Amino acid sequence: MKTLTFQDIIAARKVIARFLKQTPLIHYPELSDQLGFQAYIKHENHHPTGSFKVRGGVNFMHHLPETQRKKGVLTATRGNHGQSIAYAATQFGVKSTVVVPHGNNPEKNSAMRAFGAELIEHGADFDEALELCEKLQAEGGLYYVHPCMEPTLFHGVGTYSLEIFESLPNVDAILVPIGGGSGCCGAITVSKAINPNVKVIGVQAENAQAFYRSWKTGQRVETDSCDTIADGIATRAPFPMPLSIIKKGISDIVLLSEAELQEGMRVALRWTHNLAEGAGAAPIAAAHKLTETLAGKNVVMVMSGGNLDTETLKSVLGTR
Amino acid sequence: MKTLTFQDIIAARKVIARFLKQTPLIHYPELSDQLGFQAYIKHENHHPTGSFKVRGGVNFMHHLPETQRKKGVLTATRGNHGQSIAYAATQFGVKSTVVVPHGNNPEKNSAMRAFGAELIEHGADFDEALELCEKLQAEGGLYYVHPCMEPTLFHGVGTYSLEIFESLPNVDAILVPIGGGSGCCGAITVSKAINPNVKVIGVQAENAQAFYRSWKTGQRVETDSCDTIADGIATRAPFPMPLSIIKKGISDIVLLSEAELQEGMRVALRWTHNLAEGAGAAPIAAAHKLTETLAGKNVVMVMSGGNLDTETLKSVLGTR
Repeated sequence: MKTLTFQDIIAARKVIARFLKQTPLIHYPELSDQLGFQAYIKHENHHPTGSFKVRGGVNFMHHLPETQRKKGVLTATRGNHGQSIAYAATQFGVKSTVVVPHGNNPEKNSAMRAFGAELIEHGADFDEALELCEKLQAEGGLYYVHPCMEPTLFHGVGTYSLEIFESLPNVDAILVPIGGGSGCCGAITVSKAINPNVKVIGVQAENAQAFYRSWKTGQRVETDSCDTIADGIATRAPFPMPLSIIKKGISDIVLLSEAELQEGMRVALRWTHNLAEGAGAAPIAAAHKLTETLAGKNVVMVMSGGNLDTETLKSVLGTR
Repeated sequence: MKTLTFQDIIAARKVIARFLKQTPLIHYPELSDQLGFQAYIKHENHHPTGSFKVRGGVNFMHHLPETQRKKGVLTATRGNHGQSIAYAATQFGVKSTVVVPHGNNPEKNSAMRAFGAELIEHGADFDEALELCEKLQAEGGLYYVHPCMEPTLFHGVGTYSLEIFESLPNVDAILVPIGGGSGCCGAITVSKAINPNVKVIGVQAENAQAFYRSWKTGQRVETDSCDTIADGIATRAPFPMPLSIIKKGISDIVLLSEAELQEGMRVALRWTHNLAEGAGAAPIAAAHKLTETLAGKNVVMVMSGGNLDTETLKSVLGTR
């Protein structure tokens, strides 16, 4: 995969503006008082699909050649990426097939179907679902959208960072969850182009710290498991392109325990009145560990998604 | 108070556009499947203050003469209106004082202070808080912003209905909660001007049905109590201006039990991943009772606000 440039993101901006509203960047005075810095949230949970991924999906579909559009697209997912592809495909009149592992969250499956995807349940985990995609692609027909390797997905996702700089030109730091790394790569690329003094701080789960360990060791590290409540950042293996951008451009990566992630979701509900999924609440949780470093600054926390199912919500509220 | 015209709302649009982003109107395919009509939600809960009221506050503050701005403003509230006035006052560099009854929700009080208001706790209920405003106003000084009588509040609030028609020109019905009536009056006024065939359907709580009974009987009815979980629509006494507009222009008013309001909040969480307060979820709850009437139509449900405290949320999830 090619690298990611600021120009790619600028170009994607015009494409997605035809399909998606700019998401709000909201200043929260109470959270600011508690944290000791100016706390802003970029509400990527306000998209029609409930997560930032849709920016990538729409940009991808725009660039897909007409011959491929006619055949339809194929991908594997556990949720937000699949909703993004299903939504974007439907906008462009393209047929989409999404492979999910057995036992995938039924609410997420139902959402993907409702956005227009045909669903295939296959394999024990995400990696096995991916393998089926590769097999189906080899058999010909559908275009396989790799969730972490398709450049146009990264270009589209980068647009939220552009919006951050437009809304808050004097931003000092951006806290962003790292799953596949597209959001973080966008923040790094845009910051580097507009103001290299802005610190981009990644957030991962202690239980899924592949990027953290790869960054710390300088080697590409895969972990054996990625068992976290924050399924949006539950990745075991960093892909080379995002890893190389993150290794060069990240200021810090904060690791969160499962308890901290859950507390982040409660803080999001209480002080922003938004339902955040684990990944979406991770920057707020991380912010509580960075109050000294960030004191007095203008800090943007990316609420990457809000697709939390009710059973998990009950459990997070300590009440199930 | 003068009546409300479409021109007033058009004029307010330009004012608030300088301060507030257009809120999204999102189509929910799963909810649509369940309800048997195209289900759209107007996300007034996505404002920085978490409710539609801020549109009125900003428009009011814009029109306040400079001499009054210098003195500061005064109002009474139990929550969303006070946040709106505090927020708007701060935007315009105006001092705001807000009177709340004793025992008012501490999270709402804290939010108003954080938006810049000075808070006075007074009286056993909202009516007693209002009385203090009248007394303080009589003593001179602050400008008293009556929460249900100030025309510029109605003009500002009406702008969300304008946005609905811009986003969905072929809307068939708008479901809107009725508290003070400003949102509903806006929907009626805008519909009448743009497409009189659009049905505006109000929603009230069985436990706070003053508008419903006034509409049914043709007389202005006050109720003895308004004890509902949906505090945004907990009103006992309809004011004459909104009542006269609603009596003439409303297609129907749906009454909801407390159980139905709570179920509405759970449906909002589960199928839209938004935290809605009782009033904000009322249109979704009402929609479930109107599936025959609305079959096949394009229906907008106004999620008027999302300011639900965590304790109430736990109770709604049946888990406290």
